[in-house]
Amino acid sequence: MHADPEVVVLRLGHRPGRDNRMTTHVGLTARALGADRVIISGAASGSKGTIEDITDRFGGPFDAELTEEPRGVIRGFEGTVVHLTMYGLPIQAVESEVRSDHEEGSLLVVVGAEKVPFDVYERADYNVGVTNQPHSEVAGLAVFLDRLFEGRELEREWDDATHRVIPKAIGKQVEPTEAAGSADDATLTDTDAVDGAEPSDDTHRLRGDGRPDEE
Amino acid sequence: MHADPEVVVLRLGHRPGRDNRMTTHVGLTARALGADRVIISGAASGSKGTIEDITDRFGGPFDAELTEEPRGVIRGFEGTVVHLTMYGLPIQAVESEVRSDHEEGSLLVVVGAEKVPFDVYERADYNVGVTNQPHSEVAGLAVFLDRLFEGRELEREWDDATHRVIPKAIGKQVEPTEAAGSADDATLTDTDAVDGAEPSDDTHRLRGDGRPDEE
Repeated sequence: MHADPEVVVLRLGHRPGRDNRMTTHVGLTARALGADRVIISGAASGSKGTIEDITDRFGGPFDAELTEEPRGVIRGFEGTVVHLTMYGLPIQAVESEVRSDHEEGSLLVVVGAEKVPFDVYERADYNVGVTNQPHSEVAGLAVFLDRLFEGRELEREWDDATHRVIPKAIGKQVEPTEAAGSADDATLTDTDAVDGAEPSDDTHRLRGDGRPDEE
Repeated sequence: MHADPEVVVLRLGHRPGRDNRMTTHVGLTARALGADRVIISGAASGSKGTIEDITDRFGGPFDAELTEEPRGVIRGFEGTVVHLTMYGLPIQAVESEVRSDHEEGSLLVVVGAEKVPFDVYERADYNVGVTNQPHSEVAGLAVFLDRLFEGRELEREWDDATHRVIPKAIGKQVEPTEAAGSADDATLTDTDAVDGAEPSDDTHRLRGDGRPDEE
């Protein structure tokens, strides 16, 4: 994020079809909460496209990439490797050490889908548990990033957005930015207009991304 | 959580089939990160069963309920209603006020799936954005709960678990608890044995819950 050393999220074990939505949520969470890029292992062009589409509209920089060689990504990563797992050491016990490492260099945050190979546990500099309870890789990633950046990610500015949400106590307001074309020049405050043009879900989730294979 | 006033998560707009996994992750995240119960609107018996199964194995107390009347739940809630939405006020601006309210009484945290009716925005005491970016309701809920409890949820003790994960720097260790039957009395440290008996995914996510309708 910004001038910090890079934070990369690696999504392991994506199973096409079954994992599409979870993988999309991993990527969008990475973007929204301050990571610089997501690398998805496997055939996840739909998720990649959705993440890029959101970045085009709501800003970046943020990159989404696919890889067929996730172990090569981990092995070749020059920096600290953190693997999020319910079997790992408590985040509250290791987070300050991870933050110190991140002040010195880049961070690769590995989140799994199907069973993670044991060599990932061995290669990781930290196996970190956001609780030792089964829950969600999206939740684990979110808490990890919020703690890594100590909330600074919430103040992040976005470049090259065509639209931005104006925070409101009640209701929805989305405005075109200066980067948007003049055709978008009107301020959208009407709920219905916004619903047509914007992520129409109301809870940090897209109601659909127009990709049937994401369902 | 514990002696605190109750925190209830209400999952709105669950669409059977399509949302099963996301709804399960919402419920498991609510449980793992300190909420007392989840109420799911709609036909989500599969998600409810999965959440209950995890609670049976890894402990509680935590309740999962279904409702056909989510608006009644919101309307009748005696306490503070927080609606998580990317259109809301920044969490960092309102969290201390929400925490103060929670010291006084119960909290209902509403997370949507499909489009959230406008009256939810109006009824909510707080519409809160974990960023004003589109990402994931699971991520938003996770960051919200971690900030609400200021990390205390990570130290929570669990009652009536049959198994518990022992945090490890490398590898996986799951042990039966005293609450478990004597047949489980051996300590499971072998990875394969654990994989057979436990949530087999490695990133706070269950590899599958044995319910085809969850896929």
